[in-house]
Amino acid sequence: MVNIAHVPAAVDEVLTTFFDSGRPALDAIYPAVAEAGDVLADFVLAGGKRVRPSFVYAGWRCGPDTAGDDTMALRVGAAIELIQACALIHDDILDRSDTRRGNPTVHRRFEGLHAGRRLTGDSAHYGVSAAILLGDLALAWADDLVHGIGPATDGWADPRPLPRSVGVLWSRMRTEVLGGQLLDITNESSRDESVTAAYRVMEYKTAAYTVARPLQLGAALSGADAALSGSLHRIGLDLGIAFQLRDDVLGVFGDPEQTGKPSGDDLIEGKRTALLAEGLQRASRTDGEVLRNSVGRDLSDAELTAARAVLTGSGALAEIERQIDDRLQAALDGIVALDVDDDARADLTWLARRITHRAR
Amino acid sequence: MVNIAHVPAAVDEVLTTFFDSGRPALDAIYPAVAEAGDVLADFVLAGGKRVRPSFVYAGWRCGPDTAGDDTMALRVGAAIELIQACALIHDDILDRSDTRRGNPTVHRRFEGLHAGRRLTGDSAHYGVSAAILLGDLALAWADDLVHGIGPATDGWADPRPLPRSVGVLWSRMRTEVLGGQLLDITNESSRDESVTAAYRVMEYKTAAYTVARPLQLGAALSGADAALSGSLHRIGLDLGIAFQLRDDVLGVFGDPEQTGKPSGDDLIEGKRTALLAEGLQRASRTDGEVLRNSVGRDLSDAELTAARAVLTGSGALAEIERQIDDRLQAALDGIVALDVDDDARADLTWLARRITHRAR
Repeated sequence: MVNIAHVPAAVDEVLTTFFDSGRPALDAIYPAVAEAGDVLADFVLAGGKRVRPSFVYAGWRCGPDTAGDDTMALRVGAAIELIQACALIHDDILDRSDTRRGNPTVHRRFEGLHAGRRLTGDSAHYGVSAAILLGDLALAWADDLVHGIGPATDGWADPRPLPRSVGVLWSRMRTEVLGGQLLDITNESSRDESVTAAYRVMEYKTAAYTVARPLQLGAALSGADAALSGSLHRIGLDLGIAFQLRDDVLGVFGDPEQTGKPSGDDLIEGKRTALLAEGLQRASRTDGEVLRNSVGRDLSDAELTAARAVLTGSGALAEIERQIDDRLQAALDGIVALDVDDDARADLTWLARRITHRAR
Repeated sequence: MVNIAHVPAAVDEVLTTFFDSGRPALDAIYPAVAEAGDVLADFVLAGGKRVRPSFVYAGWRCGPDTAGDDTMALRVGAAIELIQACALIHDDILDRSDTRRGNPTVHRRFEGLHAGRRLTGDSAHYGVSAAILLGDLALAWADDLVHGIGPATDGWADPRPLPRSVGVLWSRMRTEVLGGQLLDITNESSRDESVTAAYRVMEYKTAAYTVARPLQLGAALSGADAALSGSLHRIGLDLGIAFQLRDDVLGVFGDPEQTGKPSGDDLIEGKRTALLAEGLQRASRTDGEVLRNSVGRDLSDAELTAARAVLTGSGALAEIERQIDDRLQAALDGIVALDVDDDARADLTWLARRITHRAR
């Protein structure tokens, strides 16, 4: 068993071993394929807070059978990081993003390789094509890893079968996150301004995928019964929504120094957040137009200030802050009521405060 | 047990049940997501020769334990069709194709929905985005289906676990096809004219994925030993390469009425086929330039005739035809030498002739 704060390092170790053992298999296909695999390994190992694996681990701590080793929980956590790699690589194509965590996005990196080597054809199209395929490889490898199968016969493997209950949760999680992403791009183009639609995206794209399903996956590995699993799902949804709402507030009001993103990034990107939906619903007609016209385009400082003023003046920001408090409190109450040991409860509480940026 | 010719219908039945039972799960996320799921179901069920499931079934017939039911072989075959759906949907983005089997490609279909409903943003970018996500869903569902897990709790399911030996082959197959695709786009942009590179793409993108691994997957389900599995792999690679070489010849010399594609389509699309590589290697400098200049652009009738003449005159076409004969003969000899019952041998022989377009 590792301290919850050390889960990221333990997960990185699994991922490193998995990638190292996969390299010869890709190299056997052709050296160019191994090079592409290196781009994936670099991308996955370059960082990330490993939030999802931490929740898997915290969920595993909640079940009754934690006397055995924790390697299956780390294996499932590492596998989610490969799903996340696919989600980010493909999302960056959808969002036409050039950078992520200060580095070029994967499609931009392949575009740069293509241009730098003076290859034929359209560098941008090559970059997107290679990134689509590399995301697919990450998604396929996520399933191999979760089932304990490495890309090469001589490399990483774990012969223990994945329990069927875990496989079912794994299935639900993948369908939910992809469904949430499909809904997200559809909402953005249909300009669906309803609070319902924004919440539905949060529920599936973020809350289920980031917190609720990971908690359940971990708990299923340590023999949780249906009641415990159900409680963790509810806690996870509340916490995941509080996390996303906090992120939405930071996306408009956050300090670029802290968020690593430009001021008002969510407005500029045209994200249909709950904060925006609340603002549009609550603002006067004139203010609503100001806000609506601030979505999906570059903004001057004055325009950003005006849009922020509508979100504050209409009470939308206060309403979202209230919802964050409510959701977080509901999750914390749920954690207190769990029939689990004190260490498991402490880990979960620590993670809950951490992802909602609350010290206490 | 079904007749080998009836495998496509039996696989379609599994797929239909799977999609039908998945619809409520997508609808619960949001109706727009169920609509996207319908596009996937339509795409998968609209056709295809179900070559890969047929080889899974033929492989299953080869193993010693075929007394039990064949539903696991059909389940694995149906799952490969979902991988194939992802491969085709994403490939059509990579190739910028507008139609497939006479219908709009998936990204074009979403583009049309976006434009028709006068949604905001760039319709073409929306189409590509939705198609990337839908391909991802197909890939995730392929893994659910192969493990007997349906997208909804009340719908299709098969509780029997996938044997680990089958899971390992499943893993190899997915890595190989994605590696082959990565290599393919890299060869096209690096203008790698070597016969080796063209063969490597054929081996992984086509032969392993279409014939060799499906045969082994089926055989592993009916208890094949390592010797039988190895023989089927070798037979599958020979047969798969013969199949791809035949396809390459038809891609330049085929009758549009029969192939359903424009005359000389492979040249126009810039595919780095073994036929082209042979032609470039064998042609005189002048003829080589004629051929090289015919790759990756629209061609007049006269230009196409000139390019064909280089392939014929240089002996490249005859060399490829010889290779097709050799590979097919090696596969047929391998099938004769298999220690399997006569019905299994007959099925395999029938499939071998069918995919290489040989009546006898």
